[in-house]
Amino acid sequence: MKQVKALLFDVFGTVVDWRTSVEAELKALGAKHGIDADWPKFAQEWRTSYMNDTRKIAGGGKGPSNVDVMHRENLDKMLSSPEWSSVGQHWSKEERDELNLVWHRLKGWPDSTEALYAFKKDYIVAALSNGNMRLLVDMAKYADLPWDVVFSGELFGTYKPNPNAYLGSIHHLGLKPEEVAMVTAHLFDLRGAAAVGMPVIYIPRPNLEEDDPHPENIKSKAEGGEADLIVSSFTELVEVLSKK
Amino acid sequence: MKQVKALLFDVFGTVVDWRTSVEAELKALGAKHGIDADWPKFAQEWRTSYMNDTRKIAGGGKGPSNVDVMHRENLDKMLSSPEWSSVGQHWSKEERDELNLVWHRLKGWPDSTEALYAFKKDYIVAALSNGNMRLLVDMAKYADLPWDVVFSGELFGTYKPNPNAYLGSIHHLGLKPEEVAMVTAHLFDLRGAAAVGMPVIYIPRPNLEEDDPHPENIKSKAEGGEADLIVSSFTELVEVLSKK
Repeated sequence: MKQVKALLFDVFGTVVDWRTSVEAELKALGAKHGIDADWPKFAQEWRTSYMNDTRKIAGGGKGPSNVDVMHRENLDKMLSSPEWSSVGQHWSKEERDELNLVWHRLKGWPDSTEALYAFKKDYIVAALSNGNMRLLVDMAKYADLPWDVVFSGELFGTYKPNPNAYLGSIHHLGLKPEEVAMVTAHLFDLRGAAAVGMPVIYIPRPNLEEDDPHPENIKSKAEGGEADLIVSSFTELVEVLSKK
Repeated sequence: MKQVKALLFDVFGTVVDWRTSVEAELKALGAKHGIDADWPKFAQEWRTSYMNDTRKIAGGGKGPSNVDVMHRENLDKMLSSPEWSSVGQHWSKEERDELNLVWHRLKGWPDSTEALYAFKKDYIVAALSNGNMRLLVDMAKYADLPWDVVFSGELFGTYKPNPNAYLGSIHHLGLKPEEVAMVTAHLFDLRGAAAVGMPVIYIPRPNLEEDDPHPENIKSKAEGGEADLIVSSFTELVEVLSKK
């Protein structure tokens, strides 16, 4: 870690808690129309469709390069499906447009903001997300995430874990892969960053994704695993990096 | 101005005072070797070579897409020219590499930092510069410029005033041209932004570029000129925009 000059953060799940925010807005919009449904299931299905689509495009498939467009298309698909059409019949175009922006106003994990301010003293603090630029800018303002610079897969015409997303960010930072550490709660992201030669810092977060491993299954390289460093919180990461 | 949601700032000359910082470092490096020269002239020549090169490439010509590379190449050319070779013989590769980074550590104009923090409350505050991303990130940290997002011509494979630099930034902000105001001290930049439909805010700064017009020759649209708004300082711009 001694040669690291920049920290590159995954955002959804790692810095912000998408699940709580999305479930709350779904529930509120349901309540407005007097309907209830399995909102946690809805939130997961919406998120899973995004994960599947970005993964497909990262591997060379076709689809929207902008996550706002992707989220909106997937929302319409869900709401016209047999499972959710009883919800969909209540929600207007305008309400769906507004709901789609919930991904711009996700709350940070409680330790995120203070830690990012601390990291900025010694490192370039950058976001690298599959979210589009405007989404990331809105979220930074909403959740007080003081990025030095924001990178989106959209800038590089792909999504993580395609190597070009990581390499594009590293290029624009004017650094070598070994000088930029990826900080992420997701195994696919950790592996994508490691594949281009970046050091990888794993932080388990609550509310795992469907395909995230349980934290106890991630091991540090010292233990024969894949992570250069494993921390239990951003607060711990601030302490560890201040001692390097 | 009522529909404006984001302010896009030129950086060199508009937000930071490149001339004072560059002249000071040239003079210091000269003094280290016991030599004196017309450092203001050197600084202007270095800057002019950058302006000429970026303008040529913006118009479709070939050249470095990264301004660090461009500055470094032009520095070597100057230092091997008859006029400056008496300086060049004293300066090593390492000293030139270090001097080249002066463009990463330019001081802001006295009103810049406070105003940018104020603008952030109501607007997306973005940089759009011909400087490369790392240069802009370093300068933001050095001069405390709290950008919400940083755009460089490099991201779009060109330089201002090529329309793609402005349109690329507008695209990633998810806005229409009329919703993004360009703030600049340079006429070429004002005209480039206006050409794609952006409102343009002109702010005269001291230490004009060679090809900048004298401020008294710039008129507002209300007076039959080209600028949507003319302000004498960022402090005034904060006041004007807070009343909109």
